[in-house]
Amino acid sequence: MQGTGNRSSPARCLTAGNILGLGKIGTHPGRKEGKPKARICFCWSRLMALKRMGIVSDYEKIRTFAVAVVGVGGVGSVTAEMLTRCGIGKLLLFDYDKVELANMNRLFFQPHQAGLSKVQAAEHTLRNINPDVLFEVHNYNITTVENFQHFMDRISNGGLEEGKPIDLVLSCVDNFEARMAINTACNELGQTWMESGVSENAVSGHIQLIIPGESACFACAPPLVVAANIDEKTLKREGVCAASLPTTMGVVAGILVQNVLKFLLNFGTVSFYLGYNAMQDFFPTMSMKPNPQCDDRNCRKQQEEYKKKVVALPKQEAVQEEDKIIHEDNEWGIELVSEVSEEELKNSSGPVPELPEGITVAYTIPKKQEDSVPQVTVEDSGESLEDLMAKMKNM
Amino acid sequence: MQGTGNRSSPARCLTAGNILGLGKIGTHPGRKEGKPKARICFCWSRLMALKRMGIVSDYEKIRTFAVAVVGVGGVGSVTAEMLTRCGIGKLLLFDYDKVELANMNRLFFQPHQAGLSKVQAAEHTLRNINPDVLFEVHNYNITTVENFQHFMDRISNGGLEEGKPIDLVLSCVDNFEARMAINTACNELGQTWMESGVSENAVSGHIQLIIPGESACFACAPPLVVAANIDEKTLKREGVCAASLPTTMGVVAGILVQNVLKFLLNFGTVSFYLGYNAMQDFFPTMSMKPNPQCDDRNCRKQQEEYKKKVVALPKQEAVQEEDKIIHEDNEWGIELVSEVSEEELKNSSGPVPELPEGITVAYTIPKKQEDSVPQVTVEDSGESLEDLMAKMKNM
Repeated sequence: MQGTGNRSSPARCLTAGNILGLGKIGTHPGRKEGKPKARICFCWSRLMALKRMGIVSDYEKIRTFAVAVVGVGGVGSVTAEMLTRCGIGKLLLFDYDKVELANMNRLFFQPHQAGLSKVQAAEHTLRNINPDVLFEVHNYNITTVENFQHFMDRISNGGLEEGKPIDLVLSCVDNFEARMAINTACNELGQTWMESGVSENAVSGHIQLIIPGESACFACAPPLVVAANIDEKTLKREGVCAASLPTTMGVVAGILVQNVLKFLLNFGTVSFYLGYNAMQDFFPTMSMKPNPQCDDRNCRKQQEEYKKKVVALPKQEAVQEEDKIIHEDNEWGIELVSEVSEEELKNSSGPVPELPEGITVAYTIPKKQEDSVPQVTVEDSGESLEDLMAKMKNM
Repeated sequence: MQGTGNRSSPARCLTAGNILGLGKIGTHPGRKEGKPKARICFCWSRLMALKRMGIVSDYEKIRTFAVAVVGVGGVGSVTAEMLTRCGIGKLLLFDYDKVELANMNRLFFQPHQAGLSKVQAAEHTLRNINPDVLFEVHNYNITTVENFQHFMDRISNGGLEEGKPIDLVLSCVDNFEARMAINTACNELGQTWMESGVSENAVSGHIQLIIPGESACFACAPPLVVAANIDEKTLKREGVCAASLPTTMGVVAGILVQNVLKFLLNFGTVSFYLGYNAMQDFFPTMSMKPNPQCDDRNCRKQQEEYKKKVVALPKQEAVQEEDKIIHEDNEWGIELVSEVSEEELKNSSGPVPELPEGITVAYTIPKKQEDSVPQVTVEDSGESLEDLMAKMKNM
C-alpha cells in the first residue's frame, strides 16, 4: 500500500553536527549569489529520509516551489509553519488581521505578539525556524479592488524567480468573500489552489483541491461542509463569536499541507475533497467535476481549455484523464467515494447534490433564470453574498 | 449528527479587552491563594463558545484535569501545546532528550532551543502561552527501575491537588520499551491512557485508548500499525534515521488531543483506535477487548475487576457495557468497524487477528507454552523486546 523503505542498508542518522548543507541540495534559485551564510543551516536529515524510505523520489524539489497562504489564522499559520519546516522554497503570506489574545487557543501565535500584524509576526517566527525559506508578506485584504489586482499580480509573478508564477495558492481564510476572491483570481489565471475550512462550532473541517477547468471551482456548486448545517462564513459578519480548537485546526492544517506535499512532490493519492468530522472521527472523501453552467465565466473558459487539452493527449492518457473526472451519475457530477446518504439534506430547499455520508452543502443555489449567467467578480461578490446569506437564513 | 448551536441569540465575540477572568471560572484548585496575578490572563472566549454552540456542556471542567505527556518529541510537544491552549489544569511532562536541530522539521521547538532539555524548553514556551496551566516536568527516562517507581508515584499523586491521581496518561514515545513501561504502570494502577505513534516512514500513524480491564492493553495483542510492515520501534535502537513530517505528527497530535477532550469533557464519540494513512487519506477505526491470556498479570486482574463492575451495574447499564466491549467474533476479540481484509498479513507468521482494512500488526506473538505466563515488568521488558525484534526480523 505504501513504500516500506529499504531496510537492508539503513542509513545512519544525521545529527545536528552532520547536516546536509545548502550546497549539497543546489543553489537556491531565488537567493542572490555571494550572500554570506553565517547562520544555522536548516537540518534536512529527517526529510531526506523520505527518499531513502522510498516515499518521495525527489524530496529536494520542495525547495523549488513557491506557495501562497491566504489567511494566517488558526489554519493558515500552522500551514505556513509546516511548509517552512518542510523546507518550501518561498512562502507568500496574505492577511490584514492583527494577533489578538483571543487567538491563543489555537497553535502558533504567542501572547507577546498581540498587536502585531499576523503576517509580520508569522514572518519573524518562521524566518527564525528556517532561514532558507524566502518570505514575501502582504498586510492587506485581498477583496478590495486595488489589493485584488496586486494579489493577482503576485500569483502571476511572485514565484521563486521573480516574474514567474507561483506553484500553489492555499486558502485558509474564514469568510465567503475572500474565498470567492481567490476563486475568481485562480479561475482567471488557471491557477491550481486548495481551499480549507473549519466550522464555527469547531468540530468539523475540510480541505479541497481545485484545478480550474478540471475539478469543480468554489462557484460551481454550493460550498461543501462536513456534517453541520451551520457554516463558518457568517463569522465576523454578524459578530457571532465562533468556537475554535487547536486540535481541529491542527488536523485541518496537517491534512492540507500533506495534500500539498503529495501534489507538489508527486507521491500518494492527492485528495480532491477530504472532510473531518471530529465528533465521530469520520473523514469523508469525494471529488467533483466542474459545473458547465458555472457562474464564473473564467471557470467555463478553463473547462473548455481542459477539454481541448484532454483531446490533444495521446489516447491512453486521455482515457485516464476522462476516467478521472467525468462522471454523469448525478446533476452535479459528484463522484461518490463513500456511501450515498445525507439525512441533513432532506430539509434543504432547491436542487441538492447527492453527497457522500457526512458531507453537506452550506446552502443551495436557487434555479437561475435561463438567459442570465452573471459573472462573479470581486466587485459584485458582496451582493451575491447578501443574496446567499438571506437564502441561508430562510432555510 | 452534531450540535448546531443556538443561532437565535448570538453571543458577541469576547475580545482581548473582554476576557473571562480566572475568578469567573472558579479558583484554581492547585494554585495557592493570595498569589498576585499581575500577568496576562489566558483568553477563554473561543473555547467557552463550545458551550454556547451546544458542543460541550461544561467546558470549564477542563481546568480540573491533570494530564501526563510521556515523550515530548514531534507528537508529544504539539500534544502538550494543544492541551495548554485548551486550558488544561495541569501538565506533567516526561522526556530525557535534548532539543536538536534535526528536530526542526517538526512543529514546536525552535533552533535557539537546541541543546536544552525538551521538557525545560517546552515548559518555558508553554508557560508563556498560558500561565494558568500548572507544569511539572521530569527530565528522565521512565524505563529505568528508579525512575519507573517515581513515574508510578507521580501518576498516583501528581494530580491537580497533590496526593490525588492524575486523570490521563498520554504516550507520545518513539520506542517499544517506553510504551511497555507505561502499559505496565497503567495496568498496575488501573490508569486510563492513550497511546500514539507515527511510522518511521512518516506517512502513517495512530492513536489508541486503553482503559485497563475494559479495552486491550499494549501487551494483549501485537501493537497495531497502519498499513506498513515496518514499524517505528526500531528507531534509535539500530541507528536507523527515521523520516518524519510535521504534517503527519500534527495530525496525530490533533486526533490524540481531540480524543482527550472528548474523553475528559464527555462529548462526541471517543475512539478506541484511530489510524491515519497519509498516502491514501484513509482513517481506519476499530476497538479491541482485552486478551484473557494477556502476559501482564495486572491486565488480567483489571479484567476481573471490570467484569465484577459490569455485573454490579444496574441491569440496563450493564447490558450497554457488555455490548460495548464483548465481541467473540474472532480469537482476538477485535470489533470490526470497517471492511475485513489485509493483504499484508498474509505473509506473517503466528496467529494473526482479523483487522479492518488498513490496519496491520507490527509483529505476531508466538504461541505460549501452556503453564508459563510471564509477567511483563519493566525489568524484563528489555529481554522480551529482543525476542520480539528477532522474530520481526525473521518475518
